[in-house]
Amino acid sequence: MERELIRWLQARVKPHPAIDLGIGDDAAVLRAARDGRIVITTDMLMDRVDFVLGEVDPRRIGRKALAVNLSDLAAMGAWPTAAFVALALPRTGGLELAKQLYDGLFPLANEFGVAIAGGDTNSWDGPLVISITAVGEVSDHGQMLRSGARPGDAILVTGSFGGSILGRHFDFTPRVREVLRLRDLHRVHAGMDVSDGLSLDLSRLCEASGCGAELDLSAVPISPDATRLAEMRCDGQTPLDHALGDGEDFELLMAVAPDEAERILTGQPLDVPITRIGQFVSEPGLWTRDASGRRVPLTPRGYEHGVT
Amino acid sequence: MERELIRWLQARVKPHPAIDLGIGDDAAVLRAARDGRIVITTDMLMDRVDFVLGEVDPRRIGRKALAVNLSDLAAMGAWPTAAFVALALPRTGGLELAKQLYDGLFPLANEFGVAIAGGDTNSWDGPLVISITAVGEVSDHGQMLRSGARPGDAILVTGSFGGSILGRHFDFTPRVREVLRLRDLHRVHAGMDVSDGLSLDLSRLCEASGCGAELDLSAVPISPDATRLAEMRCDGQTPLDHALGDGEDFELLMAVAPDEAERILTGQPLDVPITRIGQFVSEPGLWTRDASGRRVPLTPRGYEHGVT
Repeated sequence: MERELIRWLQARVKPHPAIDLGIGDDAAVLRAARDGRIVITTDMLMDRVDFVLGEVDPRRIGRKALAVNLSDLAAMGAWPTAAFVALALPRTGGLELAKQLYDGLFPLANEFGVAIAGGDTNSWDGPLVISITAVGEVSDHGQMLRSGARPGDAILVTGSFGGSILGRHFDFTPRVREVLRLRDLHRVHAGMDVSDGLSLDLSRLCEASGCGAELDLSAVPISPDATRLAEMRCDGQTPLDHALGDGEDFELLMAVAPDEAERILTGQPLDVPITRIGQFVSEPGLWTRDASGRRVPLTPRGYEHGVT
Repeated sequence: MERELIRWLQARVKPHPAIDLGIGDDAAVLRAARDGRIVITTDMLMDRVDFVLGEVDPRRIGRKALAVNLSDLAAMGAWPTAAFVALALPRTGGLELAKQLYDGLFPLANEFGVAIAGGDTNSWDGPLVISITAVGEVSDHGQMLRSGARPGDAILVTGSFGGSILGRHFDFTPRVREVLRLRDLHRVHAGMDVSDGLSLDLSRLCEASGCGAELDLSAVPISPDATRLAEMRCDGQTPLDHALGDGEDFELLMAVAPDEAERILTGQPLDVPITRIGQFVSEPGLWTRDASGRRVPLTPRGYEHGVT
C-alpha cells in the first residue's frame, strides 16, 4: 500500500528549489535558507479529538492538518518550505482515505509553496491519526518569539475569535503572509498564534515574556460564529466567553510598542482587520477592569489536553 | 498536562550547538551544517502494530521510536542532530507514560548527540501513538541514496537477520556510527537500512537503482533469534525464511564495487561483521541459484502495511 501511495504522490509533487531529495528514499534532503537557520514544528491531529471522521469531508481534515502547522510557522514569523506527513490509517478504505487527505492538503501546500517532502504511511485497527512536521525559513526580520512583550506594549490581534468549531477550524487561512507583511512594515516585539484559546494563549505569551496583560474585554473582536454558537447552545456562555476560550482561531496575537501600534491600527496594512484588545502590564497574570474601573483578575480559559 | 510535561522536559534537555531555540515556543529554530543541507525523516509507531503497551516497558517503546528514525538517518549517511516527538496518549496515566517514553529515548538521544527540540503532546481515548521526526546533517561524503547500485556491485550487509520480534526490534543500535566510519574509509555506491525485510528492502534498492540482485542464500547471516523463532513456531518457516522476510533488523544494506568490497571484507573495519550476500545484476528482480546452479527468481518478502 505504501508503495502505491508513494508512486501516487511522486506523480503529484512538483520539484521545489529547497528540496534536494524528496519522497522515495529513507529520508529527504533539504537546503536551508541563506543564513542556515530552519524552523521546525510538529502537530498531530486525531479522530474524535480534532475532527470526526465520517462527519466531515476528509479533504478538510488533510487541509487542517497542514494548516495548523503553517500557523505555527507563521507564529514564528517563518515562511514554510516543506512538510512531512505521517499517517495511521484504518485498514479498510485507508488508501482511498489517504488520497483524500492529500487532495485536501495539496491546494494549501501549493498556495504557500510547501513541498510534501516525505512521510510515513501506516495502517492499523485504531482511529485515523495524521501527524505533520513542517519546515520553514525565518525572514530577514528573524524569528518572532513569545518572549519579548514589554509592559506598556499594546496587545494586537488579527481577525475575530470564538465559535471556530462551527467550521472555521477546518477552513481558516494560516496567517503566514500577514505576519511577514506586518513585520516588513512594523516592529513587533513578540507574537504567537491563537490555537488553544485567546485568554489561555495570552497568558502563555505573558509567562514567556515575564509580564502580565490587561484585557479590554469590550474591544475583543467576536466572531459571528461565537454569537451563533452562544445562541445555539443556550448554556449561559456568552459570545465573549467563546471568543476568550474556544481556541482554534489561528489568528495572530502580538505585542507592539504603543506608538507603533497606533500606526498599525490607523494604517490597517492587512486584508484582515487588526484590533487592539488591551496592553501588557508589569504585574504577572491576566487582568481586566470591572464596571467601576477597578482592576480584577481574569482566569485564562482554553483547551488543554487533559490526562492524569 | 502539556505545560507540565514541557517544564519537565525543559529541565532535562541540555543546550545543543545546532539548536537556536528548543522546546517551549510555537516552533524550534535549528542551524544547518556548513553546507546548509539538512536530512529529515519521520516514523510513526502505534500500539498493537509496532509494540504492545502493557507487555513491554514503555521506556523500550520510547527508545525504539527514536532508534527507527536514527536508523533512517544512518541509511542516508547522515548524522542526527535533533528530534521532534508527537504523542497521542491515553487520558489515564498518560503523563506518567509520556515521562517513561522520554526516559527511554533520552539515553539514546544523548549517546548520539540528538537534541529533543520540540513536539506535540495530545491525549485521547485511542491507543498510544508516537510519531518522531528526526533531523540530521549529511557528512562530507554527501548523502547515501538507494539509487546508485551498479550491476556487478557486491551486496554487503552489517550484522545478521531475522527473529527481531523476540526483542531486538526494541534494543537494536542504529548504524549511525558504522555508516559514517565505513564511508570515511571506503566508497559505497548505494545503501539503505533494512526495516521491512531483507529481501523486500533489497528489491526496493534494486528498483531505485534500476537493476536486479542475485542473492547467495547460503551467505545470508542468520541471527540466532531467527533460529530460535523457527524452533519456537514450528510452522514450516526456516531460519533463512525469517532472515529474508522478518524485517526490523535495522542493519545496513549496501552496494559496493567488487574490489572495494574485497577490501572491506578483509579489513572488517566495524565492530559489527560485514558480509557479502550476493551481487547486483542488470536483469531487474531478485534472483538466486538452485541446486543445479540455474538462476531462479526469488519472491521478495517482508512487512507492508496492508490496507484496501
